[in-house]
Amino acid sequence: ASRLPGYASHQVGVAGAVVDESNGKVLVVQDKNKTLNAWKFPGGLSELGENIGATAVREVQEETGVCSEFLSLLSVRQQHDQPGAFGASDLYLICRLRPLTYSIDFCTEECLRCDWLPLAELARTEETTPITSRVARLLLHGLERGWGAVDLPMETLPAVHSGRFYQLYHRGLPLA
Amino acid sequence: ASRLPGYASHQVGVAGAVVDESNGKVLVVQDKNKTLNAWKFPGGLSELGENIGATAVREVQEETGVCSEFLSLLSVRQQHDQPGAFGASDLYLICRLRPLTYSIDFCTEECLRCDWLPLAELARTEETTPITSRVARLLLHGLERGWGAVDLPMETLPAVHSGRFYQLYHRGLPLA
Repeated sequence: ASRLPGYASHQVGVAGAVVDESNGKVLVVQDKNKTLNAWKFPGGLSELGENIGATAVREVQEETGVCSEFLSLLSVRQQHDQPGAFGASDLYLICRLRPLTYSIDFCTEECLRCDWLPLAELARTEETTPITSRVARLLLHGLERGWGAVDLPMETLPAVHSGRFYQLYHRGLPLA
Repeated sequence: ASRLPGYASHQVGVAGAVVDESNGKVLVVQDKNKTLNAWKFPGGLSELGENIGATAVREVQEETGVCSEFLSLLSVRQQHDQPGAFGASDLYLICRLRPLTYSIDFCTEECLRCDWLPLAELARTEETTPITSRVARLLLHGLERGWGAVDLPMETLPAVHSGRFYQLYHRGLPLA
């Protein structure tokens, strides 16, 4: 509870897991400039003033050409001393998105490969990162048991006095 | 997917909801320097390199004198153009904590009042913020139905190659 004014200490990144429920596939990319060819969810840094869902939709579109819409927050990752972040800590939010288009036109500057991969395969393969693998398992669980088991839906709530609005993410509640 | 180096664009705050399960009460404070005497969870800005749970425990101790331990992440709030944040966006993470001590010795520089309030009362009173009220309902639901209904547990996973570790928060998964 420092009473000094706030300062920006974190970079915030957002990844989008675009799941095609008709076939259980998810949209993944391999970064061009990394040593390991690991499948990951497309994503990147949030711009100033941009909502989490908007970042995910924008990054997915820029990297893969696929249009999508935001559904829920799935996971939060924190890491410190992120390389390239000038000492800032790093929060990475992983969202679930619904595809609106399906054909891939990926950004060749950023990506080496881009594909729709079966979730079961992504959960099993060694060609991915531990976090992507874990989120693939989470998504498989949601696909099988219903998304209510894994989702944090978003709601907009008013701030006190200021006339501003918050986006709040938490587990669904029974109707009051 | 900007390929420029990252920069810190967000301040990250953490609030701690310390729930005494023996009586269904939660630790709340009223800020000294705000116009409205609204009950809120103690909390404040994350320091550089500090884990979410560590921030919550530290802020609760500084504001209320109560010692606690981190249990889970409950909710994520995003707001833009936060007053006092110099244009930075604001992410606020609300955690669930277990009390280790119970007697209150609150910081009179920051707080006007501090008390253990029944969750049912906090969920009902007008003397609070919309978000505190919502999280009180979420906590009541967890108290009644089991914490698995509302919690995002934390796990530590290795990063690829770097030897670093991430903290990852998501809904519990059945054992593999």
